[in-house]
Amino acid sequence: MKILPKLERKLRRLKKRVIRTSLVRKLDLVHESARKKAFQESCDNYKNQIENEYEIRNKLPKMARSGREAFLSDGSFHQAVGRVLLVAEFFAMMPVKGVTGKHPSGLSFSWRNIRTCFSLLFIASSIANFGLSLFKVLHNPISFNSIKPIIFRGSVLLVLIVSLNLARQWPQLMMYWHTVEKDLPQYKTQLSKWKMGHTISMVMLLGMMLSFAEHILSMVSAINYASFCNRTADPIQNYFLRTNDEIFFVTSYTTALALWGKFQNVYSTFIWNYMDMFVMIVSIGLASKFRQLNDDLRNFKGMNMAPTYWSERRIQYRNICILCDKMDDAISLITMVSFSNNLYFICVQLLRSLNTMPSVAHAVYFYFSLFFLIGRTLAVSLYSSSVHDESRLTLRYLRCVPKESWCQEVKRFTEEVISDEVTLSGMKFFHLTRKLVLSVAGTIVTYELVLIQFHEDNDLWDCDQSYYS
Amino acid sequence: MKILPKLERKLRRLKKRVIRTSLVRKLDLVHESARKKAFQESCDNYKNQIENEYEIRNKLPKMARSGREAFLSDGSFHQAVGRVLLVAEFFAMMPVKGVTGKHPSGLSFSWRNIRTCFSLLFIASSIANFGLSLFKVLHNPISFNSIKPIIFRGSVLLVLIVSLNLARQWPQLMMYWHTVEKDLPQYKTQLSKWKMGHTISMVMLLGMMLSFAEHILSMVSAINYASFCNRTADPIQNYFLRTNDEIFFVTSYTTALALWGKFQNVYSTFIWNYMDMFVMIVSIGLASKFRQLNDDLRNFKGMNMAPTYWSERRIQYRNICILCDKMDDAISLITMVSFSNNLYFICVQLLRSLNTMPSVAHAVYFYFSLFFLIGRTLAVSLYSSSVHDESRLTLRYLRCVPKESWCQEVKRFTEEVISDEVTLSGMKFFHLTRKLVLSVAGTIVTYELVLIQFHEDNDLWDCDQSYYS
Amino acid sequence: MKILPKLERKLRRLKKRVIRTSLVRKLDLVHESARKKAFQESCDNYKNQIENEYEIRNKLPKMARSGREAFLSDGSFHQAVGRVLLVAEFFAMMPVKGVTGKHPSGLSFSWRNIRTCFSLLFIASSIANFGLSLFKVLHNPISFNSIKPIIFRGSVLLVLIVSLNLARQWPQLMMYWHTVEKDLPQYKTQLSKWKMGHTISMVMLLGMMLSFAEHILSMVSAINYASFCNRTADPIQNYFLRTNDEIFFVTSYTTALALWGKFQNVYSTFIWNYMDMFVMIVSIGLASKFRQLNDDLRNFKGMNMAPTYWSERRIQYRNICILCDKMDDAISLITMVSFSNNLYFICVQLLRSLNTMPSVAHAVYFYFSLFFLIGRTLAVSLYSSSVHDESRLTLRYLRCVPKESWCQEVKRFTEEVISDEVTLSGMKFFHLTRKLVLSVAGTIVTYELVLIQFHEDNDLWDCDQSYYS
Amino acid sequence: MKILPKLERKLRRLKKRVIRTSLVRKLDLVHESARKKAFQESCDNYKNQIENEYEIRNKLPKMARSGREAFLSDGSFHQAVGRVLLVAEFFAMMPVKGVTGKHPSGLSFSWRNIRTCFSLLFIASSIANFGLSLFKVLHNPISFNSIKPIIFRGSVLLVLIVSLNLARQWPQLMMYWHTVEKDLPQYKTQLSKWKMGHTISMVMLLGMMLSFAEHILSMVSAINYASFCNRTADPIQNYFLRTNDEIFFVTSYTTALALWGKFQNVYSTFIWNYMDMFVMIVSIGLASKFRQLNDDLRNFKGMNMAPTYWSERRIQYRNICILCDKMDDAISLITMVSFSNNLYFICVQLLRSLNTMPSVAHAVYFYFSLFFLIGRTLAVSLYSSSVHDESRLTLRYLRCVPKESWCQEVKRFTEEVISDEVTLSGMKFFHLTRKLVLSVAGTIVTYELVLIQFHEDNDLWDCDQSYYS
Repeated sequence: MKILPKLERKLRRLKKRVIRTSLVRKLDLVHESARKKAFQESCDNYKNQIENEYEIRNKLPKMARSGREAFLSDGSFHQAVGRVLLVAEFFAMMPVKGVTGKHPSGLSFSWRNIRTCFSLLFIASSIANFGLSLFKVLHNPISFNSIKPIIFRGSVLLVLIVSLNLARQWPQLMMYWHTVEKDLPQYKTQLSKWKMGHTISMVMLLGMMLSFAEHILSMVSAINYASFCNRTADPIQNYFLRTNDEIFFVTSYTTALALWGKFQNVYSTFIWNYMDMFVMIVSIGLASKFRQLNDDLRNFKGMNMAPTYWSERRIQYRNICILCDKMDDAISLITMVSFSNNLYFICVQLLRSLNTMPSVAHAVYFYFSLFFLIGRTLAVSLYSSSVHDESRLTLRYLRCVPKESWCQEVKRFTEEVISDEVTLSGMKFFHLTRKLVLSVAGTIVTYELVLIQFHEDNDLWDCDQSYYS
Repeated sequence: MKILPKLERKLRRLKKRVIRTSLVRKLDLVHESARKKAFQESCDNYKNQIENEYEIRNKLPKMARSGREAFLSDGSFHQAVGRVLLVAEFFAMMPVKGVTGKHPSGLSFSWRNIRTCFSLLFIASSIANFGLSLFKVLHNPISFNSIKPIIFRGSVLLVLIVSLNLARQWPQLMMYWHTVEKDLPQYKTQLSKWKMGHTISMVMLLGMMLSFAEHILSMVSAINYASFCNRTADPIQNYFLRTNDEIFFVTSYTTALALWGKFQNVYSTFIWNYMDMFVMIVSIGLASKFRQLNDDLRNFKGMNMAPTYWSERRIQYRNICILCDKMDDAISLITMVSFSNNLYFICVQLLRSLNTMPSVAHAVYFYFSLFFLIGRTLAVSLYSSSVHDESRLTLRYLRCVPKESWCQEVKRFTEEVISDEVTLSGMKFFHLTRKLVLSVAGTIVTYELVLIQFHEDNDLWDCDQSYYS
Repeated sequence: MKILPKLERKLRRLKKRVIRTSLVRKLDLVHESARKKAFQESCDNYKNQIENEYEIRNKLPKMARSGREAFLSDGSFHQAVGRVLLVAEFFAMMPVKGVTGKHPSGLSFSWRNIRTCFSLLFIASSIANFGLSLFKVLHNPISFNSIKPIIFRGSVLLVLIVSLNLARQWPQLMMYWHTVEKDLPQYKTQLSKWKMGHTISMVMLLGMMLSFAEHILSMVSAINYASFCNRTADPIQNYFLRTNDEIFFVTSYTTALALWGKFQNVYSTFIWNYMDMFVMIVSIGLASKFRQLNDDLRNFKGMNMAPTYWSERRIQYRNICILCDKMDDAISLITMVSFSNNLYFICVQLLRSLNTMPSVAHAVYFYFSLFFLIGRTLAVSLYSSSVHDESRLTLRYLRCVPKESWCQEVKRFTEEVISDEVTLSGMKFFHLTRKLVLSVAGTIVTYELVLIQFHEDNDLWDCDQSYYS
Repeated sequence: MKILPKLERKLRRLKKRVIRTSLVRKLDLVHESARKKAFQESCDNYKNQIENEYEIRNKLPKMARSGREAFLSDGSFHQAVGRVLLVAEFFAMMPVKGVTGKHPSGLSFSWRNIRTCFSLLFIASSIANFGLSLFKVLHNPISFNSIKPIIFRGSVLLVLIVSLNLARQWPQLMMYWHTVEKDLPQYKTQLSKWKMGHTISMVMLLGMMLSFAEHILSMVSAINYASFCNRTADPIQNYFLRTNDEIFFVTSYTTALALWGKFQNVYSTFIWNYMDMFVMIVSIGLASKFRQLNDDLRNFKGMNMAPTYWSERRIQYRNICILCDKMDDAISLITMVSFSNNLYFICVQLLRSLNTMPSVAHAVYFYFSLFFLIGRTLAVSLYSSSVHDESRLTLRYLRCVPKESWCQEVKRFTEEVISDEVTLSGMKFFHLTRKLVLSVAGTIVTYELVLIQFHEDNDLWDCDQSYYS
């Protein structure tokens, strides 16, 4: 029976070996201090954060009063995007039913719905208008500048058709968003729930207001212009003859046609602005989901977490990636139209900026419009690249996992974050990252320098030229 | 004997430790629900898929009648590409024997075969024609536009020689395809077997028809042109004098030479179109092999599979990669010629589009030809980049491997998919991915903007100019 | 009791299996020789290095005499950058208190400090000057060349505001530097401590001197110019009328305004140079921290180190990366302004180089200024890309870890070094690596070639043209 | 005693579990067939290879007679490069003693050696000649074309100085090559030993011959030219007045100066060609070392090798990488000069190709020179990118490691091959890969298109123009 204790001791040693040799243990003590400091730091950060949140919460009541119902937000994308889609429906896009409902299961698309009919009607009307523009452009010498109306109306038409198709997929997409959101680590405060919706509303509001201001300025300048190049005695008729020259190129003036043209212009301008804003809003939504995950990771940064914690986070990360992929498939045509449009329009506008303006009204409108265009393009680029930035941020927290809890799951998570390229894209031809901004800027400068050589000053603002957009 | 049970218990604990601590088990319960849902989802997907397939199978009989023999397809690339190669052989390319045979072992190449002789004869005839073109071009001032005939005939000649060389390797390549295909997870339905062959046939048919239509239009426009610039009284002679000006630049008109020139033109045009289609067809074949593998992975997505399953899939993936490499080595010269050709011709044609067309026949031919060219280039780019896209798709399924069955083999597979760049290439100078499309488009716009500055309108369509191609 | 020894033997075998089979052991002997040689080599390297250091130390006393206090340097960035910031404070930038203190805890920023007031005052003065420049430029035809004063003054103003904001964060940033530095492997010799501070001083001194020389030359050339285009009888007045034409475009000459303009010019020129130097100095600091880590790794290259050694180094590496990130966030706007400024100015100056110089004084000033500009741009690019180069160098030592001590920690370290992109950046739009230099050079050549086409010789040096910068 | 057997059984089960479950074993049988086939294949390959080698060996005697001493080659780079350096020494470059010795230990550099003195003398002479060229160019209007002599002589001078510096490091570099080579898997056949040396000799011979042919043609054309623009009665004097116009721009004609100028021209032309060839030769050497390693890996492809085999190969791979790094540090300035030179000269020559040639002799010389230049540039690019290609090829063999022998060492090896970028570079600003070729070609086309716009025909071949290079 004396051998048995010996055997037992051997077993014990075997176990020890698996866990930790005594040498390693001593060396670990050296490391322990470093880890403790890191933990201390993360604790401090945590406390600071809690304090900050407390302060903000105390400051909030003032805001809260003016937006109490906003505070009942559950932080879902469906709810945040509701009013945005409502506006879109008013402008004949995205004919989905139930966009302002509490739950995405209330969403539905039907061909017989009044929204869909309105949308289809407007598409038909737009096709007619596009045909008229095409007819006029082809009957004049073609240049980089003269194809502007086709590009404008063509891309609006394309976006309309894509948005109709998107509307059919929307209920499903929102259900998937809902599943992903439900699974994510919950928001800690009402404030963080409220944030995404607030940003989306602000972007939409600002975009709409600037777009409206631009339209007003464009009208002022057009009236100015029309009175200068007056073809008839009626100033209103002059105005419509100018701004809808593609209609009155084939037919004579009637008030009904003029009103149809005006309606068409207002709606097209909105849709042209809306596509940029839509890309921004989807980007904000996706980036905020990654942020929600990252916030949770930051809270536990540097701490020893169980492998299941990491595997859970990894699956959540994966789900957001899949969501991102699905959304990209759904809207990437809109993204491409939006980017190529902005690229073309900035080139044209910069080229026009070389001209001397006929009046102050023109100058104000022109520069406002140019800076709005550049600002909008920059905003789309930066918001959409923020999805990629947020998705990479996760890596920062994974780098700080202490070596004790570095396990298979953390490794797998890290490798996935490194190797995946989570971005929105333009039909997969280009990916929306910050580096894209620079290359777009470089392309604009290069093309501009070459285009200037074809430029002749006085053929852009004469009375025979197509004026509006 | 009391120590023994104690020892036994210790052993039990040791075993437990290896498998799972009780704490971890509890946390795993939380995770279990997530996994179950994922499994449920994949089951649902599976059911949906089965149902879809069933529906399609019920719909098929109608099609089946018109193409019963197509349904006996075994889904091999050799069989799918058979008729494509038969057409090529008719046009003096790819002189391989047994292309329509059931099994690739029936393929053979021989220098004494009638096909090879025809091919060699045509190469000789093409060299003569190329020489005549070169002679004519060098005796005129050289410009970006005037070297078109050399580029056209030179690349046709190059492709002919490359295809002769490819024909020698073809039996071996097809045997390798066969080995790889036999090893892949089998197709579930007759439909999926039939798909690749069908796509290849459709691409070939559409390409041939458009190419034929373009040739007819070119003839109409050339007849029109010849009658305008009539040098002789005979309209047929006028036509040949125009379309084969490189021959009649050195010699006087004879009917035999005119017919030879016509024959040469028809064949060259076909070969010029065929090289693009060939790249597309090989790409479709390769992409479909990756898809076959991915379909199998999708069926078992999120399930707990044994390591051998993964190691088998990895080896299959590796085999397709090697196949892709071999095919790329064999056809990358054709790919490069095809891409540089398209790049050059789009630039030239866009430049020509600035000219005013002499007649409606010209305008129709010109715009048809331009859009065919752009469409074909886009199709080659997208089909060939689909190989890369499909090869990356595998990653999507590997990301969903549940943590229980995440093993060394899955990890190795994942790392290989991430680090390999599986694409067709143009002599390894460029890789065919979707990003290439954008950079090609950017290059075209840049060169076009610069080229327009050298452009003078009336030197392109005058009567002394080389007309055909 | 006979079964027990058998059991014991089995256990022993089990253990053996885990560690090493006898076959493997034999094969290892083959490998052992290779490893020994590697170890021998690393030992030799170590000895060589020790000897080198000894030699240098013996050579040093000569230097030491002239810079004894430099040898009391503790090798911290705070101490090295002290005098650089002192100079900046003299030029109304970076109003931080305690920059020359021993410890970063002495640093503080206050709005009521005299430095801050001076800085704010100068910003106000710069805004006025910028407004005057803008006014003058907008009242003249705009060209690539004529917007130079706005670009110059605008970027100086931007840098001033950014530096004020940076000053607020400076104490915190320096505290973080301090924490990171304290944790790093200590310098072995006084020489290595002294090195970073010395490089920073030299860069600053050389930059200042060249900038001063350029300013003197600019004055000589301006006096020359003013006497040629004399508007008034007073040569001093003529000089100021030329160099501050933006002021006297709106008002008549007074000595007070002239002095203000001169003061503004001198300060602007300094700040314009300083932003490049600041980016260089921060880069030197960051690169030197990576070098400090790499030096330690080199000392133990190829040796068998404990896992804790590696985990310690990894955490240190991580800390420097985080530091790099924080510094990049703080100065990336300055970096972007600096790079775009240099790009623009090199293009303008190269364009001007096509002009014939009115006098030798002009030619000397012009070419000195051009080469200074190019040299400075190159220096900024190379110094800032050295951060990235040094951070990648760590990989070289990790590659030489012998297989016996290749553990989880080394693997994690390696993967982090591979996947992280540690660089300074321009607002994350571009990353400062050596490849950037080539692409910047390519861009300059391309733009230059295009710009030359708009160039007309005599509109750049006439008397009505804005002269200074 | 009944419990003990039970315990024993448990232990047995525990062991089994570690190794393989019965389920897994069954599944493995499925996989086994695949593995066997792979092994079979690799065996077949091996047999084929052996057979091929046997055949070649039987064919060789014919060759062997004409190059018996070549067959005593030990396959070292030192021996292969010996005669190349001997030629260089004759042309005043690389003054190292003992380049044709058997062992690299015989190499030495000394400032007092006759080779070094000759080299220094020639550098002095070149500086004088460069000064004269600079003087002439600065006294004429500067254009893209007129700076050709400075670029030519300047880069020759730079290469001379770099090569002198390289000569000092050469003995050490060759010793390192020797250590790396000794450690690599030995060549199997005399043929494979002989191959690298043979390729290097062929490249050198072909390069020298083409360079000589070009020089003869340049002389013929210059004589032709000189007789046309005869300034004096003496045709020889006319010739020298043309080809060394930079000398006789400042002084009057003397025979001694003319001979010095001729000597300078011949030597400069050689050195200008040699720098390209040197980059090629080093690339061939490095690529061949990777190939040597890859050949060994191919022999054991798909077999079950011990971990030590892999760790050995990994260390060998690492050593070649370090060698590659050291060589790159030593020659990267030459590489950069070579590439930028070729880029500039191709642009200039293509621009000149638009001119009408004054005579047939000119045309022959011009087109020969242009195609030689393009061919040489392509050869340098492809040979130098082959280093990178070969280094990546290793991955192919690592992918085929069977799962049984997939161990830590193979994984580490794989990861290192994936993440390292082993290339020669131009001062790390660009890396020499196949993709570089395309971007260089694109740059040439872009610059060419822009440059053509500044081009005027008749200012290039008139009698007052600098003629030679």
